[in-house]
Amino acid sequence: MTTYKKLFQSDQYARLSGIEIVSVTAGGAVARMPVQPCHLNALGLVQGGAIFTLADLAFGAACNSRGVLAVAVNVSISFMKAVTTGTLTATARELTCNPKLGTYTVDITDEQGNLVAVFQGLAYRKKQTHAATVDPG
Amino acid sequence: MTTYKKLFQSDQYARLSGIEIVSVTAGGAVARMPVQPCHLNALGLVQGGAIFTLADLAFGAACNSRGVLAVAVNVSISFMKAVTTGTLTATARELTCNPKLGTYTVDITDEQGNLVAVFQGLAYRKKQTHAATVDPG
Amino acid sequence: MTTYKKLFQSDQYARLSGIEIVSVTAGGAVARMPVQPCHLNALGLVQGGAIFTLADLAFGAACNSRGVLAVAVNVSISFMKAVTTGTLTATARELTCNPKLGTYTVDITDEQGNLVAVFQGLAYRKKQTHAATVDPG
Amino acid sequence: MTTYKKLFQSDQYARLSGIEIVSVTAGGAVARMPVQPCHLNALGLVQGGAIFTLADLAFGAACNSRGVLAVAVNVSISFMKAVTTGTLTATARELTCNPKLGTYTVDITDEQGNLVAVFQGLAYRKKQTHAATVDPG
Repeated sequence: MTTYKKLFQSDQYARLSGIEIVSVTAGGAVARMPVQPCHLNALGLVQGGAIFTLADLAFGAACNSRGVLAVAVNVSISFMKAVTTGTLTATARELTCNPKLGTYTVDITDEQGNLVAVFQGLAYRKKQTHAATVDPG
Repeated sequence: MTTYKKLFQSDQYARLSGIEIVSVTAGGAVARMPVQPCHLNALGLVQGGAIFTLADLAFGAACNSRGVLAVAVNVSISFMKAVTTGTLTATARELTCNPKLGTYTVDITDEQGNLVAVFQGLAYRKKQTHAATVDPG
Repeated sequence: MTTYKKLFQSDQYARLSGIEIVSVTAGGAVARMPVQPCHLNALGLVQGGAIFTLADLAFGAACNSRGVLAVAVNVSISFMKAVTTGTLTATARELTCNPKLGTYTVDITDEQGNLVAVFQGLAYRKKQTHAATVDPG
Repeated sequence: MTTYKKLFQSDQYARLSGIEIVSVTAGGAVARMPVQPCHLNALGLVQGGAIFTLADLAFGAACNSRGVLAVAVNVSISFMKAVTTGTLTATARELTCNPKLGTYTVDITDEQGNLVAVFQGLAYRKKQTHAATVDPG
């Protein structure tokens, strides 16, 4: 049986970016990105787009984790700390989920647990359902 | 003399993502991304992170275009239209710019000019200056 | 026949705040707030909440202007300029509108036309319809 | 000696709106608004502007609680639950605070502790300092 973890491994842009899903639970997900030279911007810092993509993958897994197809409609992200090396972790959790809309917050942290960015996402839930399952608890 | 266009070509994550700066003027910039299979998510649509990265590059070029080093502190992005093929264009323009903060809006459009996403970014302007110049008008 | 202008005059919080709808067209609306002492915060500046409420009324009128009941689900607002006197104007326009979601941008300007704040709102469109009509053109 | 609680009581718009500061600690604040008919919009629900104003007061107190004058530059708010009666509470906490910028999150809850809205605010810290003090612990 396909798990969400496996489903999200088919995300080509996440793969290109070296991002992987660590775990998916009901309403939550964790993703990880070891910083590489390909993630750096013109100033030598991890590009905001790479941080967003990491957080977005965790968000996408979390908002799809309840068996209903969901897509991002709005995201607000604040960047607090410049990063150049190490592994970044994005931890998504559900704030609320009603039949059509779900709200999620994603913390992006460095290896020391410092907050690098915080991402708040709103998902619109469609009528289609998934066959995938969350990770065995 | 180095232009912003050249400076932003050294953005490794933009290069990885196949994104290029088209032009940089005072307070504005245009970037472009031809959609490729590597940009797709698990649902076969262009990943939100790829769209964000395209917009962020245009934003970064625009907010750095006045000779002062600027970094993104907050972004809000709304996704309006799913995309699977074609070339996406991000057009950034400055709404306001004071000594410490600048506000920019970026329209992301498809080849037909339809709005795919809209990005609003806030930049914090540091004390350092740039040596780069905008494109000859 | 009830127009939107009349409908939004029944907004008690807008009335308390001295905010009035100037006009409502298909996908757009304008609202106005003459600054009074009751709008000031502890620093003597117009409170962010008063500016938000002004913009939100214009947004609410615009997103309800197509005959379908719509409610705000997410708003991002950037404050660019402190204000202490004069009349503020909020001008809402529709960026996109699909069956379930609409995206609107609202410019808040002072009497000189300077941008005081910019508001981006996402509305969720319900199944109910309105009896109200837009202003005669 | 003036406490922040007292300082924020001079916020005229909060007073007009029937909002009061409950407590201010270093990096945090709580504000409260008993819903009254004057808070309702044209649909009979608490207006988004009233909820924003409640949250903004808690945010303002929290971001000014460290002895440095701070102003809101950007806010993203998501509305999750319509409210018509009861007392709303806004609880602000600091996510990060560096010399120039601070990031805060504010939960707005109803009497049952349900999340009504979530507010994420970015404050710019000026050079001026305050004479006010936080509440005695």
